[in-house]
Amino acid sequence: MIAIDWGTTSLRAFRLDAEGRVLETRRSATGVLACAGRFEEVLAHEIDGWDDPLILMSGMIGSRQGWHEVPYVECPAGLGEIAAAMTPIEAASLPDRRIWIAPGMTVKSRDGLRDVMRGEETQVCGLLGDFGAGRHLVCLPGTHSKHVDIVDGRIERFHTAMTGEVFDILCRHSILGRLMEPGAHDPEAFSAGVDDAQRRDDLLAQLFAVRTKGLFGDLPASGLSSYLSGLLIGHELNDLPQAFDSLHLVAADQLLMLYERALIRRGHHARSHADFAAAKGLHALAACRNLPSQ
Amino acid sequence: MIAIDWGTTSLRAFRLDAEGRVLETRRSATGVLACAGRFEEVLAHEIDGWDDPLILMSGMIGSRQGWHEVPYVECPAGLGEIAAAMTPIEAASLPDRRIWIAPGMTVKSRDGLRDVMRGEETQVCGLLGDFGAGRHLVCLPGTHSKHVDIVDGRIERFHTAMTGEVFDILCRHSILGRLMEPGAHDPEAFSAGVDDAQRRDDLLAQLFAVRTKGLFGDLPASGLSSYLSGLLIGHELNDLPQAFDSLHLVAADQLLMLYERALIRRGHHARSHADFAAAKGLHALAACRNLPSQ
Repeated sequence: MIAIDWGTTSLRAFRLDAEGRVLETRRSATGVLACAGRFEEVLAHEIDGWDDPLILMSGMIGSRQGWHEVPYVECPAGLGEIAAAMTPIEAASLPDRRIWIAPGMTVKSRDGLRDVMRGEETQVCGLLGDFGAGRHLVCLPGTHSKHVDIVDGRIERFHTAMTGEVFDILCRHSILGRLMEPGAHDPEAFSAGVDDAQRRDDLLAQLFAVRTKGLFGDLPASGLSSYLSGLLIGHELNDLPQAFDSLHLVAADQLLMLYERALIRRGHHARSHADFAAAKGLHALAACRNLPSQ
Repeated sequence: MIAIDWGTTSLRAFRLDAEGRVLETRRSATGVLACAGRFEEVLAHEIDGWDDPLILMSGMIGSRQGWHEVPYVECPAGLGEIAAAMTPIEAASLPDRRIWIAPGMTVKSRDGLRDVMRGEETQVCGLLGDFGAGRHLVCLPGTHSKHVDIVDGRIERFHTAMTGEVFDILCRHSILGRLMEPGAHDPEAFSAGVDDAQRRDDLLAQLFAVRTKGLFGDLPASGLSSYLSGLLIGHELNDLPQAFDSLHLVAADQLLMLYERALIRRGHHARSHADFAAAKGLHALAACRNLPSQ
């Protein structure tokens, strides 16, 4: 089968064997925003030469801005509910393919705030089979980091932290960026940020300290972005619950390394998962729904 | 005398009588950044027609990027120490004037973080005479909000929250801004933000809720920026200490109104001070230093 993780700014295609092992991968910048509505054409191009009849897709391709809007599944939900909500779509130019889009998920927190995800729930589906009973946390760092709380094999709740986007706009558009000099990752400055985030919860005040640390030479200008990164990731990790049975990270290499370091600093050991989780998740959903891969 | 509040992006000039009453005010956009080093020329232009010999200035004009760098005074300090640190400067084209620049202030918090201000300490100096013994808080909202803690008539400590700047860049550059529609201030959405900020301390997660409130219609698109404003101001106010004798606000009209509302929502009553505090402060510093105004 073919598994496609189709996000806002990129698309990744995986060709899988019957057991869900990744045979081949492709990546392109034709995310939902870049497609200008020509999803069928882009898909045909991306899978050119792969003749597998079954195609499963997840991510923003199932949003209102995507190919076909697939409603959110409400928490708590397990593999069964998510698989049941998958929606088949027609593609006239690809008549010999069966194409499905996975749903996103939504949750209403105790204080009434709504949260949503699209794509990350599928990555988590790729891990659910490995978890036994108990409480397991999956952290998916990124522009909008997701923390997913799994209880007895079902996604119980989740929340989003705008860590990556806030880091990016502070570096590019705020007074903090003006003092920063490009440099290699500075592990010491990063750790100092992670530690400072644990000491206090007044993020708006701590951000200004990035500036004063630069002004007073407490940190070299080349270490300021690592410090800010540590500070923001540290604040995100302040929300980790006290007790759980295992903690998992799903991210690409560079983010994975940062979050591993931050978690070790906080005394946690996380298991890191390669970035193939979406492919594994889509394979699990196909199997759950008994979709024949031929 | 002439009092000048010369900041990064604007300049305000006040002509005062011997008792420090404001006789006349002028405002221009020739902040430190816009002067391109031609401070003497800009000053001569701004005070054209005012023949008072004594000129006192505060704000970024005393920074490294300003006319002449005046070192920071360390906390705790009162009117006496701040007045003693004022520095006279020469202006060849204004030979009959005596020109002084007030210092900024710096503080090192318990956890070793440095903070700085330039200009706000002078505004606080304008209020010190009204305070008796005890603990008084002055909040100066803005791009970088300052909270100044006054104990027995001296500035004991302060900290900065990047509230205004973070609001601005989130509206202009983040995904949150994309859902926002221009509209009048929405008091209900603002209050909801102030309340939500008190309930939780995970700001990075709460920011994402601005988006989901828009997506799910919990707030109208025209109320999202008021909600975000309430959320950020609410987080800033989470840092207010439990016990103090009085609370004061110094800001221009629109910010004053927002902070008054947020403080009332939190059960505080703040005394609001007109934006002339800088003029009053420079007059107090001149009197403390016994500078003759003729």
